Amino acid sequence: QELRCQCIQTHSSFIPVKFISKVQLILEGASCSRKEIIVTLKSGKLVCLDPEAEWVKTIIKKILDRTSN
Amino acid sequence: QELRCQCIQTHSSFIPVKFISKVQLILEGASCSRKEIIVTLKSGKLVCLDPEAEWVKTIIKKILDRTSN
Repeated sequence: QELRCQCIQTHSSFIPVKFISKVQLILEGASCSRKEIIVTLKSGKLVCLDPEAEWVKTIIKKILDRTSN
Repeated sequence: QELRCQCIQTHSSFIPVKFISKVQLILEGASCSRKEIIVTLKSGKLVCLDPEAEWVKTIIKKILDRTSN
């Protein structure tokens, strides 16, 4: 039983990019056998997202492809 | 002069996904006016990557699209 996966449940409803200040993408590894995505909202709140959900992949790719102003 | 950007310089040579344990994608915001990408290597070392470099976007998308086993 993995003791150090950080996400117990994931937030399922869409979160617009403008509410996000940081995205942590934690790969499968020794401490947890599944990939985890934790976003920090501008409110300071931490939210786990489902790494397999298409909308999650889409918003992260949008952040990546958005050129800094 | 921004005091709280975390990356002073970025690592320019390619890093294979297998060496990466975590990716932090920090959006432009109050504390820093540019997007920053910080990866934690399996060795524990922290490395800043250039958010505009194509290879960086490619490895992050690869991590996102890789289905957990």
